[in-house]
Amino acid sequence: MSITIRKLDSTQADFKQALDALLAFEAGTDAAIETAVAAILADVKARGDAAVLEYTNRFDRIPNGGAANVAAFDITQQELQAALAALPAAQREALQTAAARVRAFHERQKRELQGFSYTEPDGTVLGQKITPLDRVGIYVPGGKAAYPSSVLMNAIPAQVAGVAEIVMVVPTPDGVKNQMVLAAAAIAGVTRVITIGGAQAVGALAYGTASIAPVDKIVGPGNAYVAAAKRRVFGIVGIDMIAGPSEILILCDGTTEPDWVAMDLFSQAEHDELAQAILLCPDAAYLARVEASIERLLPTMPRRDTIRTSLRDRGALIKVRDMAEACAIANAIAAEHLEISAEEPQQYAEQIRHAGAMFLGRFSSESLGDYCCGPNHVLPTSRTARFSSPLGVYDFQKRSSIIHVSEAGAQTLGKVAAELAYGEGLQAHARSAELRLKPRP
Amino acid sequence: MSITIRKLDSTQADFKQALDALLAFEAGTDAAIETAVAAILADVKARGDAAVLEYTNRFDRIPNGGAANVAAFDITQQELQAALAALPAAQREALQTAAARVRAFHERQKRELQGFSYTEPDGTVLGQKITPLDRVGIYVPGGKAAYPSSVLMNAIPAQVAGVAEIVMVVPTPDGVKNQMVLAAAAIAGVTRVITIGGAQAVGALAYGTASIAPVDKIVGPGNAYVAAAKRRVFGIVGIDMIAGPSEILILCDGTTEPDWVAMDLFSQAEHDELAQAILLCPDAAYLARVEASIERLLPTMPRRDTIRTSLRDRGALIKVRDMAEACAIANAIAAEHLEISAEEPQQYAEQIRHAGAMFLGRFSSESLGDYCCGPNHVLPTSRTARFSSPLGVYDFQKRSSIIHVSEAGAQTLGKVAAELAYGEGLQAHARSAELRLKPRP
Repeated sequence: MSITIRKLDSTQADFKQALDALLAFEAGTDAAIETAVAAILADVKARGDAAVLEYTNRFDRIPNGGAANVAAFDITQQELQAALAALPAAQREALQTAAARVRAFHERQKRELQGFSYTEPDGTVLGQKITPLDRVGIYVPGGKAAYPSSVLMNAIPAQVAGVAEIVMVVPTPDGVKNQMVLAAAAIAGVTRVITIGGAQAVGALAYGTASIAPVDKIVGPGNAYVAAAKRRVFGIVGIDMIAGPSEILILCDGTTEPDWVAMDLFSQAEHDELAQAILLCPDAAYLARVEASIERLLPTMPRRDTIRTSLRDRGALIKVRDMAEACAIANAIAAEHLEISAEEPQQYAEQIRHAGAMFLGRFSSESLGDYCCGPNHVLPTSRTARFSSPLGVYDFQKRSSIIHVSEAGAQTLGKVAAELAYGEGLQAHARSAELRLKPRP
Repeated sequence: MSITIRKLDSTQADFKQALDALLAFEAGTDAAIETAVAAILADVKARGDAAVLEYTNRFDRIPNGGAANVAAFDITQQELQAALAALPAAQREALQTAAARVRAFHERQKRELQGFSYTEPDGTVLGQKITPLDRVGIYVPGGKAAYPSSVLMNAIPAQVAGVAEIVMVVPTPDGVKNQMVLAAAAIAGVTRVITIGGAQAVGALAYGTASIAPVDKIVGPGNAYVAAAKRRVFGIVGIDMIAGPSEILILCDGTTEPDWVAMDLFSQAEHDELAQAILLCPDAAYLARVEASIERLLPTMPRRDTIRTSLRDRGALIKVRDMAEACAIANAIAAEHLEISAEEPQQYAEQIRHAGAMFLGRFSSESLGDYCCGPNHVLPTSRTARFSSPLGVYDFQKRSSIIHVSEAGAQTLGKVAAELAYGEGLQAHARSAELRLKPRP
């Protein structure tokens, strides 16, 4: 069965409309999910552990009639270490190598944000203090979507930031634990693992229960119920972005092995049917070669059905005038993953303003970045790279301003503040500044 | 008429419950507002300029039968400069001094975030690139809540970040323009001012219309309609935090002039009836002196009705065991504004983990920081300082990861990535890494 993939040309009259249509994606809100989630959250807030226990036993079909109490959902550090020790050596070593590299990159990232303070001539000190969050919740999906790499990518930045308590929740449908996920938690420095999930886990982390202390922020991917619950508790706790479907945009100058590019497109498309894989190239003949590679390689892929649907519904091969135009289109798309698969990628990278992560040169496949290069694989989707960043150490830190005005400073600043405060009709503000003036008014 | 203010003592048996009750605040969602805002946004998205024009003419009661088109709502740079030139000299100079100090602090803040890159022994380059947002919208409330200081605090960090287009929207009910707000826009480097407001302005900025280009992020305070609209467009554009009522927490060792502390409490309470002002002190006699100052000074305040209601409903004077306990309570409260009004404030500041801004020493009144110290006055409210930061240059920048894997790097990283990808059942990821290995599989 042949593959269908959209072909566009930037010189076609309706190119802009066709590109907009290709990119258009709006996450629908499902009223039934919203209602169910609101009820679960309210129940967890009101009844705490009892509600968490009931929902978990029911939704996750916990065997033997369910757990007796929420404490039974805790996994001990010993069990985590045992899961790590029991992994096949190659898998354990790969996980450890990946973790070490992710940690090294995030340690470097942490060095950027040290806070500062400076003293003005009159003795006034101004500054910015950086502190880690106290307690963070990491949501890890259960079942087939449980990715150990996501445990590393979410927990390690929190650990590097200095978060004292990293609480991971992961549902275990039918009571089945994913050993590789537990091993990743052991490596990543997770301080507590609780086998609960869904909106009830989000509620427990946000509001706290008798046995689960409330956290300050919840990060990590989840299904529609988890996403809806995170949106609802936002403000009570911090949350990361609600991720849309994953995307790759490849800019290729036509010098990379076509099979490599085809497989890179597949590696995005295999995630799910809504994933988006787009190739931009100025060379029509090269685009045809990539299409031939796609045709030839697709039947060999275990996840070919997902890949085929994703490429048909959301993929595209786009002929552009030149690489400069490709960069301009890339800025408009603001892709989550941007591969610049070219001989001299740097010249094009300099033209890119918006991308979650840039993969430069033909050896930088997205899959390397997904697992073990070091930078985070949690990236802004759906054009949000225009205004947001990869998950990082900075997501687990916050800043406080420091203002220490000297007596001399209060004299000059007080007059300015009073003038502006009276102008805004805030007299107590003005008088609060004036009281510090001498002679006092 | 005497003032009523809650008095608590940290040794009382029910102190924790009393404190929780004092701090409890949940912004209600108003179904009528939600429905109205959803309809306005959908209309602006569908009809663009025509909808913006109609809503603005109607809601803001634009005189002379309303404007003929959206272009008529633009204020020219000449008009902004004229507003600045026409201000009384003292006011103009105060505004310019404040702007210069805010700019200096944010320039210092920008220096923290420069991005980085490093090269590994095998030639692989990893890094982080920092870029400003392209286009930002700043919402400024109209009428009485129009604060020129807010224009400075929202626009200057964007300008320092390097945002090319800073679009300010400010409604002009009955067509009346606030000259000090326009003057502040001239000083702060706003590139375009449009006299529209409400949900229709938020919609125009988020979706774009024929005459208004869509922005990447919308910041700035607004009424319940504006807040609801910002929540709804979040994801299409970035937004800042939805602010709750303003708060001040004062930790005092009993050495500051009681009138000063009373006036600092007033300066928060005068904002609105939901504002919260709390004083913690280990010295009962001092608390009584502050209460006496409150009694004596309140009748002299033009905004005494608002202050009285705010202090009665949401204020408190709290006797603590010692300053260490005061610091612990401050960490639990995570206040927007924290004054440490003490002889040696530094020792206590070191114990504080959570606060939007810390004002150290008795000369550092919050009002100085609100206008002209330099740090931003847009701060996390309602305990969100546990996980979020003051508005800053970083809110107008974002990061992109850089991954440039060398051929040698692809050999070692490829094996690790393939191992983990097969473990997660993502075969295209694995093969994408393996294709870069030589000899190729």
